[in-house]
Amino acid sequence: MYKFIKKLDNGIRIGELETAHGKLPTPFFMPVGTVGSVKSTAPWELEEMGAQILLSNTYHLYLRPGEQLVKELGGLHKFMGWNRPILTDSGGYQVFSLGENKSKVKSPKSKVIKENSHLNLKESLVKISEDGVEFKSFLDGSKHLFTPEKVIDIQLDLGVDILMPLDVCPSGKASAREVKEAVELTIRWAKRAREHFNKRIQNSELRIKPLLHGIVQGGLDPELRKYCAEELIKLDFDGYSVGGLAVDLETRDMWGIVKLMGEILPENKQRYLMGVGTPDNIIIATKLGMDMFDCVLPTRLARHASVFVKRHPEQSEGSHYQLVNLLNSKYRADGGVIDQKCGCRACQEGRGFSKAYISHLLRSNEILGLRLTTLHNLWQYLELMRNLRNSD
Amino acid sequence: MYKFIKKLDNGIRIGELETAHGKLPTPFFMPVGTVGSVKSTAPWELEEMGAQILLSNTYHLYLRPGEQLVKELGGLHKFMGWNRPILTDSGGYQVFSLGENKSKVKSPKSKVIKENSHLNLKESLVKISEDGVEFKSFLDGSKHLFTPEKVIDIQLDLGVDILMPLDVCPSGKASAREVKEAVELTIRWAKRAREHFNKRIQNSELRIKPLLHGIVQGGLDPELRKYCAEELIKLDFDGYSVGGLAVDLETRDMWGIVKLMGEILPENKQRYLMGVGTPDNIIIATKLGMDMFDCVLPTRLARHASVFVKRHPEQSEGSHYQLVNLLNSKYRADGGVIDQKCGCRACQEGRGFSKAYISHLLRSNEILGLRLTTLHNLWQYLELMRNLRNSD
Repeated sequence: MYKFIKKLDNGIRIGELETAHGKLPTPFFMPVGTVGSVKSTAPWELEEMGAQILLSNTYHLYLRPGEQLVKELGGLHKFMGWNRPILTDSGGYQVFSLGENKSKVKSPKSKVIKENSHLNLKESLVKISEDGVEFKSFLDGSKHLFTPEKVIDIQLDLGVDILMPLDVCPSGKASAREVKEAVELTIRWAKRAREHFNKRIQNSELRIKPLLHGIVQGGLDPELRKYCAEELIKLDFDGYSVGGLAVDLETRDMWGIVKLMGEILPENKQRYLMGVGTPDNIIIATKLGMDMFDCVLPTRLARHASVFVKRHPEQSEGSHYQLVNLLNSKYRADGGVIDQKCGCRACQEGRGFSKAYISHLLRSNEILGLRLTTLHNLWQYLELMRNLRNSD
Repeated sequence: MYKFIKKLDNGIRIGELETAHGKLPTPFFMPVGTVGSVKSTAPWELEEMGAQILLSNTYHLYLRPGEQLVKELGGLHKFMGWNRPILTDSGGYQVFSLGENKSKVKSPKSKVIKENSHLNLKESLVKISEDGVEFKSFLDGSKHLFTPEKVIDIQLDLGVDILMPLDVCPSGKASAREVKEAVELTIRWAKRAREHFNKRIQNSELRIKPLLHGIVQGGLDPELRKYCAEELIKLDFDGYSVGGLAVDLETRDMWGIVKLMGEILPENKQRYLMGVGTPDNIIIATKLGMDMFDCVLPTRLARHASVFVKRHPEQSEGSHYQLVNLLNSKYRADGGVIDQKCGCRACQEGRGFSKAYISHLLRSNEILGLRLTTLHNLWQYLELMRNLRNSD
């Protein structure tokens, strides 16, 4: 349950989201723990850094270890040793982006209506029908079917706090007609997901029930986005996600859509801008009324030796962060920490590690190297969100 | 400076070793941080687990990042964020085991006296002369010369607490004559190392000076071992190491030598059994009078999903530990921790991670998986040493 508190002069919405695993001040960032672990980190480190909530992936956990096993072992929180809230995506995005070969889009009656569609990113061997989406496992090629109902069941079995419904996530190259078809199907699936979810949780004994989002699709077409949002709002979701903007679109094209979403989505529901993004883009998006964010960038870049360093305000020139690659030879003998003003384990006063040491570890393929860059980048994101919440 | 306190009924020597970075109760185990990091762990985790001292490698640090850089940045302790004692090996073992192609053993006057020698493990392109040992970098093939003096200089530049002199470490397949030659050269090099070390530290302003060990070689020949030990004792080292027993010898063959060393090495100096070994072997060795141990097993096995689990005393049948591979399919759905009696971060009460979760992480190549197995195995070793020190 989201409580809108106030809008700051800079446009940032201050609020609070209550879940079965605690209250979250918004806006917030969710580190990504795809298979039940935020890469290279331990849950106690995430707690120490002030991570409030994690994101995990329905698609991956369904395939391995399987949501039934997770349920038998007490749910995802217990499984991964994390007692704060967890959000899972619907798996739709992974189905489309991790599939292989050609896709086939079927008609509502399961007749194939389109081949070689751009509804997917990688020409996936993904068959979309009215019923749901059939896909091959990225692990072993086995066939699986995700329906809107099945995806709700998986997430309820995982026992997460915030669920996403199955949606159709078109590539940035999709034609206008393909995007329209994706939106229509997303809306019909959202309705089925909502109904199934309501039925499943009506007898739930949880004091605070899990939350289900609607996902707004529609590419870069404002009319389609507006239509999708209005249809979803009729279904009265607990919150709303804005999908399809972190796929392969040019960043500059998306702000009009984000602004529109900030204007038309209900004020008293949390808004989640899926998969976005860089610290700079998160800053912009909060000012356009977005509350929730996730992105693999801080952890993925860290594993490639790249760290975010905050610029001095007078040097920002539009960008508040500089991306520094510690494998650059100029850091080989650099005795300074990554960022003197940073409070992470890698930088902190008294125990900070030199860039020379971290680059030595990275060159030597030592795990501690990417652990330290990961802790640094995540700390930067979490600190950014703290600052945005206090930016009045 | 070692202080012998008492010998327990089971033969274990209780003592205390004072270094510039603190006092160490003996016997102790040193986790191995080859290039300045104990693989996958952070220094604060090692402290938390009660690691008292780490081992690092002269050979690796000399090649990368270079001891001069480490010195400029304030020494190895500061470089790696570890304020407790550090021991470095001499690099001799790595020179012989990481070299390539054929070795050439030269006469004292640098004439090649032997080719295809078994003095090395891998038929290294290593040229041994009276002066020292020439080798090729495992990183880039560049040529380098280690002399007894140079190796002391490197370790003093690193600023470590306990130093090893350059020795000749023959393979287990070496002939009697080769072992004899290795011993003679080791003794001559030890003398040069001792003299150079004394000269270098005589003006040191450190309240507590670094400690230099003599390394006893001699393969499985008791007479040669005795001879080597006696010659080294004449040089009055600060402590004594027993080398060459963790190479490729059968474990059962080595106990006679360890027992002999326990009997003839000075009671008032610490004894370091290099590279040994399994928990069971460490238990035996402490009872034969050894005080210091290092081994890559706990960290290396952990990265291969293998964890040490203490057996119940009635089930021990000679071995106190069972090695469990968490990738075994029977752990896939096992909700229990690795060892309920273990106090490590992976097992501990309230936050312990199930074998199912850890095996899921290992299958998914998630770093947290091997971090948890590493913490577990190191904790088992460190706890074993605590128990041995209190085993009266």
